[in-house]
Amino acid sequence: MKTQTKALIAGLILTLAAGTAWAVDPEDAIEYRKAVFQVFKWNMGPMGAMAQGDRPFDREELAKYAEQMARTADLPWQGYVDGSDVGNTASRPEVWTDRARFDAMARDFETQANRLLDVVNSDANERQIRMEIGRLGQTCRTCHDDFRVARR
Amino acid sequence: MKTQTKALIAGLILTLAAGTAWAVDPEDAIEYRKAVFQVFKWNMGPMGAMAQGDRPFDREELAKYAEQMARTADLPWQGYVDGSDVGNTASRPEVWTDRARFDAMARDFETQANRLLDVVNSDANERQIRMEIGRLGQTCRTCHDDFRVARR
Repeated sequence: MKTQTKALIAGLILTLAAGTAWAVDPEDAIEYRKAVFQVFKWNMGPMGAMAQGDRPFDREELAKYAEQMARTADLPWQGYVDGSDVGNTASRPEVWTDRARFDAMARDFETQANRLLDVVNSDANERQIRMEIGRLGQTCRTCHDDFRVARR
Repeated sequence: MKTQTKALIAGLILTLAAGTAWAVDPEDAIEYRKAVFQVFKWNMGPMGAMAQGDRPFDREELAKYAEQMARTADLPWQGYVDGSDVGNTASRPEVWTDRARFDAMARDFETQANRLLDVVNSDANERQIRMEIGRLGQTCRTCHDDFRVARR
């Protein structure tokens, strides 16, 4: 075998080995994205309760939760790796078959999470802030309706 | 009753009601902090594997994981609320009885997560970066040894 061919094969083997090492375990990816959504719930829960008047409206607490929401808003999507459409997940196959729409909804959510943070940190009044919390909740629901299996 | 006394009592009732509404469910707090640690694992896993040579060293991927690690490093501790020392948790009671030391270890971890990010984004060489990943892992282990029930 020519030296060049040998080098090519050696390179190919290294690439394949690297590919194997890099591969994310789909089960780990599922657990990861569910964990991020659990973190979202921690922040969204109290904000939603404040928006609906089930919890006293506290601007300082809101600022904390809104900041944490905006800061983590982009984290879940990297967990939707190939092969993680099956297993312990409530994701619909549409996440993978209609990815452009899923990604667009993810961007909407991130944008609205950042918008809420801006509004909380502005001189907006309580009514305006409640409305922005509602809008953020709506971006969650819109995506869940289309891309998550309904809870029974 | 004097108007002033009435107002005082009304204020007290409102404060108590607010206190009730604000109270975090300890079970939710436990689930939350476990979720944050799951997110840590997603970022720390590949970095640890790269440090140990079990995965190809990739500076771009490292930068991503290190950034996500630094960005979320302060999130778990708010989940260690009163009453969450019992239930579905591996936390030792020392988290609550030796809080100053627990908090100091939390700060060490945050500092090292940020230091790793700085080093990854500097012109440090692979050996130096591996060492900083190892140091971050060490801050995890030190705290787990003292404040988490050992895995069986």
